[in-house]
Amino acid sequence: MLVLGIDPGTAITGYGLVRTAEDGSLTAVDYGAFVTKAGTPMPRRLAQLYGSLNEILLLHRPDVSAVEKLFFSRNVKTGISVGQARGVVLLGLAQAQLEIAEYSPNEVKQAVSGYGNADKKQVQEMVRVLLNLEEVPKPDDAADALAVAICHLHSMRMKILQQGENE
Amino acid sequence: MLVLGIDPGTAITGYGLVRTAEDGSLTAVDYGAFVTKAGTPMPRRLAQLYGSLNEILLLHRPDVSAVEKLFFSRNVKTGISVGQARGVVLLGLAQAQLEIAEYSPNEVKQAVSGYGNADKKQVQEMVRVLLNLEEVPKPDDAADALAVAICHLHSMRMKILQQGENE
Repeated sequence: MLVLGIDPGTAITGYGLVRTAEDGSLTAVDYGAFVTKAGTPMPRRLAQLYGSLNEILLLHRPDVSAVEKLFFSRNVKTGISVGQARGVVLLGLAQAQLEIAEYSPNEVKQAVSGYGNADKKQVQEMVRVLLNLEEVPKPDDAADALAVAICHLHSMRMKILQQGENE
Repeated sequence: MLVLGIDPGTAITGYGLVRTAEDGSLTAVDYGAFVTKAGTPMPRRLAQLYGSLNEILLLHRPDVSAVEKLFFSRNVKTGISVGQARGVVLLGLAQAQLEIAEYSPNEVKQAVSGYGNADKKQVQEMVRVLLNLEEVPKPDDAADALAVAICHLHSMRMKILQQGENE
């Protein structure tokens, strides 16, 4: 199963594709960030983000997607701005008929590092270890997106385990 | 010139098309609201909004668009939610190669009613009068969208007048 994780933002949206094997091992298939320039008008930047996302969707054809959920931000203005990028991402995923899971930053930390209060560096280091990478994925947004994808795989595995126990 | 005004929201996005004649008189060509159901998953709702907007763009082929600018909201969560709808709207307009003007709620009030502190009802009544309508356009979001379109026409006329005076 191939999971696309996304950490949306206006200036930079991280993406990460993680494949899980039968034995549960994880591989980073691709990761990176869609970057748009600050000087460019916002509608143009959103169109660029939408185009880049669609390229990745066509290239990798993931089975499922997971997006970081946002509850807060530095301020309302930032919230609206990130919301705009997030809206374009959700639209692209919906149009690709992809199932979309959403996880809060704390759920992601919990899933990747075992506890919800891990700091950013610890989460990134856990991502590196879980994916058998030599270095922490760069930029940070790509590492965050990979963490969201891993979170979804953990969450699905937990559900399957729980179902087994209830039978 | 045909202006498309938009007041974006997740549950309801108002739209209004205003045509201006050579003599400066204004006509409401079409107005209404794109409504999505609360129970539907957000990505689906954003895809519906995007589809409805594109239908209106194809139907009327406006010359220019104007969107309400958002600086604040009741809280950050609402801001992110409205931002998502706004992002999808800006994307649709950018893909249609439309020029996009943005106006704050106060700029809209100022343009339509002559002063920035008019209340919502006064603004709606001014929209009715300026467009020679028998009743205030419903829903409120449609009236707001028409006000944004009128604001853009006023703003363009002011620019032309100012250029004339500077020559």
